[in-house]
Amino acid sequence: MKQPHLACADWLRDRADHIEQVLEELIPAADVAPARLHAAMRYAVLGGGKRVRAALVYAAGQACPVSGSMLAIEASMDRAAAAVELIHAYSLVHDDLPCMDDDTLRRGRPTTHVQFDEATAMLAGDALQPLAFELLAGMPIAPALVVQATQVLGRAAGSLGMAGGQAIDLHSVGKTLSRDELQTMHSMKTGALLAASVTLGGIVAGASSAARQALDSYAQAMGLAFQVVDDILDVTADSASLGKTAGKDAVENKPTYVSLLGLEQARELAEALRQSAHLALSPLGDSGARLAQLADFIVLRDR
Amino acid sequence: MKQPHLACADWLRDRADHIEQVLEELIPAADVAPARLHAAMRYAVLGGGKRVRAALVYAAGQACPVSGSMLAIEASMDRAAAAVELIHAYSLVHDDLPCMDDDTLRRGRPTTHVQFDEATAMLAGDALQPLAFELLAGMPIAPALVVQATQVLGRAAGSLGMAGGQAIDLHSVGKTLSRDELQTMHSMKTGALLAASVTLGGIVAGASSAARQALDSYAQAMGLAFQVVDDILDVTADSASLGKTAGKDAVENKPTYVSLLGLEQARELAEALRQSAHLALSPLGDSGARLAQLADFIVLRDR
Repeated sequence: MKQPHLACADWLRDRADHIEQVLEELIPAADVAPARLHAAMRYAVLGGGKRVRAALVYAAGQACPVSGSMLAIEASMDRAAAAVELIHAYSLVHDDLPCMDDDTLRRGRPTTHVQFDEATAMLAGDALQPLAFELLAGMPIAPALVVQATQVLGRAAGSLGMAGGQAIDLHSVGKTLSRDELQTMHSMKTGALLAASVTLGGIVAGASSAARQALDSYAQAMGLAFQVVDDILDVTADSASLGKTAGKDAVENKPTYVSLLGLEQARELAEALRQSAHLALSPLGDSGARLAQLADFIVLRDR
Repeated sequence: MKQPHLACADWLRDRADHIEQVLEELIPAADVAPARLHAAMRYAVLGGGKRVRAALVYAAGQACPVSGSMLAIEASMDRAAAAVELIHAYSLVHDDLPCMDDDTLRRGRPTTHVQFDEATAMLAGDALQPLAFELLAGMPIAPALVVQATQVLGRAAGSLGMAGGQAIDLHSVGKTLSRDELQTMHSMKTGALLAASVTLGGIVAGASSAARQALDSYAQAMGLAFQVVDDILDVTADSASLGKTAGKDAVENKPTYVSLLGLEQARELAEALRQSAHLALSPLGDSGARLAQLADFIVLRDR
């Protein structure tokens, strides 16, 4: 039996190793002043994570026929993939702070403010954000594409995207949300940056508007699926395999897809979204295969 | 007797009023969801400040002969000026948080985390940063110039600029810094964004490389002068006229130009920097007049 989520694993590992090396090089070294800040930035970003966002950038890029210098496009893909990983990493650092989720464990290690201190963690997050935009601005592709990429990432990270989703999340603790409200929150908090990753891959590859549309539909479904599965795993997995504290949502009385729909229906929703993602890719033909595998990986993962 | 720092006051008031209106329009309204986050962002940005950074953008733009659509350039100047004010405002919000300076008063009002809550203040700052880059990306000028502007702002806001300077500041409390170390800290913490403001004005106006060089020299001198004068005012002014807690640096045993050089020599340094700024402008001829006035305003201000 073909198991596309396993076939994808080697590629994912390769991309994770690759982006780790790219990030190693693009974040200032830990001995460059201010050294403690750079050490905290590196701690927050390097050494772990599934790198799903980077993988989405690369897979979306692969889904589009590219024109122009392959070398320039590869370098730009690396920068776009690094940029979304930086934004993701900064959001985790700030999210873990005592004034937010007050979490001490992340990817099986002490969170950044525990390892360093609160102020350094906040500043590390603050400094990762502009670095992401600086990386995009250094992409060696047509400036008009760089500008589009900047717009996409800026929107995804801001008050109508990730930061806005976190603000809604913050104020929804202990409240009952409707499915629509929950979906809005997650589509902003997690979905926006995942979707932006797909879009950035398409922009860097110079995707046609038809391809961009297919990528957008795929991204919408996957952004949501990712969160539904996260909610499921929070209930079904243990802290060791998650690398973070399991069961936290329930303890904190946070609304989740599982609390709203029940475990079985949440699983059905994840499966339906996986199928929507596959369907969205059909205009891309064979070149969308990697994105299809990623959809399977995201929905069928166990951590 | 001619008093250029007074002649400049009306123009500064006009620019401050103008950028206030621009920011009013460019930040999502307080009834757009997530409403509390947008209210906090607006609270942090609107209703005050000298808007020196916005003024530097406009004045630098005036110093260069522009080509192309005046309307497009004016709209782009507005976006660039708004972007630097957003970065400045976010840095103040985060700087005021309990884990940093723990300040309760800013511009004569409760700080953002006092008015809202810590988590909302942090997220408001987090959301202001990508909005700044989104605004730059929306400038209706040549994409290559937009990309340059993004690079300049990203560098100025990051670990080798403002955020890095704050990290150094954080770890210098109670330490003795040499004049070089103090200068490095301030050139990053305050100087980088002030200099970026001048550079952005030049980029948007499509300045020649000779003009860019003159602007850079001016910006270096002014960035430093601004901080020297800030240090002087912390000693000589009272909280009411400063709109923030006066005398805090000494209480917190922070190294300042006054603690390092003494009041009189700090004043002489500010004056020398003012003259350097004027000198730097000479290649620009009469069109640099506004920047010259701003140099006088920054050094001769009393709050």
